[in-house]
Amino acid sequence: MDKKMIGSRSIRFATSPYIVGSYSLVGKKEGEGPLSCYFDEIEEDPMFGGETWEEAESRLQYRTANKALENSGYKQEEIRYLVAGDLLGQLIATSFGVMDLQIPLFGIYGACSTMGESMSLGAALVEGGFADKVMALTSSHFAGAEKQFRFPLDYGNQRPLAATWTVTGSGAVIIVSEEEMRKHKEKNNPQEPYISITGITTGKVLDFGVKDAMNMGACMAPAACDVIYHNLKDFNYKPDEYDKIITGDLGYVGKDILLDMLKEKGYDIASRYLDCGIEIFNKEEQDTHSGGSGCGCSASTLTGYILKKMKKKEWKKVLFVPTGALLSPVSFNEGNSVPGIAHGVVLEVEQ
Amino acid sequence: MDKKMIGSRSIRFATSPYIVGSYSLVGKKEGEGPLSCYFDEIEEDPMFGGETWEEAESRLQYRTANKALENSGYKQEEIRYLVAGDLLGQLIATSFGVMDLQIPLFGIYGACSTMGESMSLGAALVEGGFADKVMALTSSHFAGAEKQFRFPLDYGNQRPLAATWTVTGSGAVIIVSEEEMRKHKEKNNPQEPYISITGITTGKVLDFGVKDAMNMGACMAPAACDVIYHNLKDFNYKPDEYDKIITGDLGYVGKDILLDMLKEKGYDIASRYLDCGIEIFNKEEQDTHSGGSGCGCSASTLTGYILKKMKKKEWKKVLFVPTGALLSPVSFNEGNSVPGIAHGVVLEVEQ
Repeated sequence: MDKKMIGSRSIRFATSPYIVGSYSLVGKKEGEGPLSCYFDEIEEDPMFGGETWEEAESRLQYRTANKALENSGYKQEEIRYLVAGDLLGQLIATSFGVMDLQIPLFGIYGACSTMGESMSLGAALVEGGFADKVMALTSSHFAGAEKQFRFPLDYGNQRPLAATWTVTGSGAVIIVSEEEMRKHKEKNNPQEPYISITGITTGKVLDFGVKDAMNMGACMAPAACDVIYHNLKDFNYKPDEYDKIITGDLGYVGKDILLDMLKEKGYDIASRYLDCGIEIFNKEEQDTHSGGSGCGCSASTLTGYILKKMKKKEWKKVLFVPTGALLSPVSFNEGNSVPGIAHGVVLEVEQ
Repeated sequence: MDKKMIGSRSIRFATSPYIVGSYSLVGKKEGEGPLSCYFDEIEEDPMFGGETWEEAESRLQYRTANKALENSGYKQEEIRYLVAGDLLGQLIATSFGVMDLQIPLFGIYGACSTMGESMSLGAALVEGGFADKVMALTSSHFAGAEKQFRFPLDYGNQRPLAATWTVTGSGAVIIVSEEEMRKHKEKNNPQEPYISITGITTGKVLDFGVKDAMNMGACMAPAACDVIYHNLKDFNYKPDEYDKIITGDLGYVGKDILLDMLKEKGYDIASRYLDCGIEIFNKEEQDTHSGGSGCGCSASTLTGYILKKMKKKEWKKVLFVPTGALLSPVSFNEGNSVPGIAHGVVLEVEQ
């Protein structure tokens, strides 16, 4: 039994849960960025047909989930569990967004690391034999997040250069057992390589005392460093084991801190490092300062970009590390620091 | 593999994760209620030595976690995962509360059903072989919850009779594999019976359109009914299989609705039904109207009362069903209904 637990912080999955369907849906601004051609769908209407920002995000999440189901060929009643969350207080985008799916729900909160957490738990539920099919889902919405965490958009508030731009986007993956994957493959894509989740490294809350909610990259970099370091140690890998090591939303500021911190610990990952927040926007043209952020940033970049690169075998093995800043409007206003957390997921494409 | 999945919504654990340590810590008012003699600790200071209500709840959660560790004889670094959450926006009581434990964290949100969700996921992680020891932890604080969801205490706002009183309390359990339990038993309590988690039934979001956040019992009763109904169906049990079927915080109003709904579905559970929210306060003397509520209500009643009754073998088999109302201040102010969710955990004491 112990063989699944690797080192102090990681799991190696023996039968590798597989991803058999996914979907990425983003907003207009994200659709104008460098990953434009990769996203499955771009919605021009920031309200997604809803009447409030929260309803907009619920609709964004619901449509993404439904399209991922369509994409996988499964019906909603076939999915044993939904592991989902968002950035808003009391997961309100998820609570209202997934209601109509009527799939048993584990609601989770990991700030912008949520996609890593949902995939970790989803893969464990499948690998443990507790589910044959699980959906991992998350989202964020620029306007909902600004309203929740910062200032109403109408203020036209200025943003410092260290600030990131919350991505309007959602990503969903359907994770299934090896047996289900074989059936799926036979029926749908016998020639296509499938991507498996071969391991996870789970993060803990780390607080370096940074109190600037407009510099979340700095708040989250230590947590990302901790997870990447333990992943490499637990699996006994050198960084070049991975074609890419991809964090969620450290942005330009957090990236530099992460690379420095890992170098101090003896790991130089610069040549294979990417950050979803950096990839998703064009810094010069889109005025997004340090990059993109939000649960939807890593979720839509994974499902829109990373998985597609892997399907083409341009990248064969990826360490995906969504990163989260653990603040609330209350904790921030009370003068607290912003702790960080990160969750690592090892992805491999079939050879 | 499929044998673990029972019916459409439940899991039967093959090797039964065990609870080897627990702790219940509550506030002054809870300590004056009918369960007074059962709680492990009662704290008179509503601030728990902190400076804000949020810090108070973080300290409440941290102390509970530490005492549960002490109680189990494990060190914090031996715990593989912490599955924890609270009621506040962005889980701020947990984020700051558990930081110093430095245990890899899965943050979860299930409103007041959180203890059921954390025990479900914790038990699955242990049974799946992904962890030998997991802590499930949650809390709520009356003043923090009032501030977050309703009105600042200083307003002296009146409360309708259908309203419940958020419990200031926290509960933690340490869940371990059968192998670890045997070691623990030999070392600590060879004569004492241990309690195992033999199954779970996971809830989905159910919305009956109730818009009254001061009547959460009515909002959550359909979700509790759905979970209890599916638990009995999936395991092919009659209600008398259980010595007790115990919901989280339906209160007096929700209780009546639940019993009626289940009767309509052919199950009469009245003779073995309890609700933590009803048990924890004295309705006549404590002015708590419909009863107690909050993540801490079911968590502290479980660890303070239910587990102790089971250890004495007064109750041998219990279905524990914490219930959650999925609202946020934002969703409520935008005029949305209050959907509900519930998570069922089957507890059995060794014979």
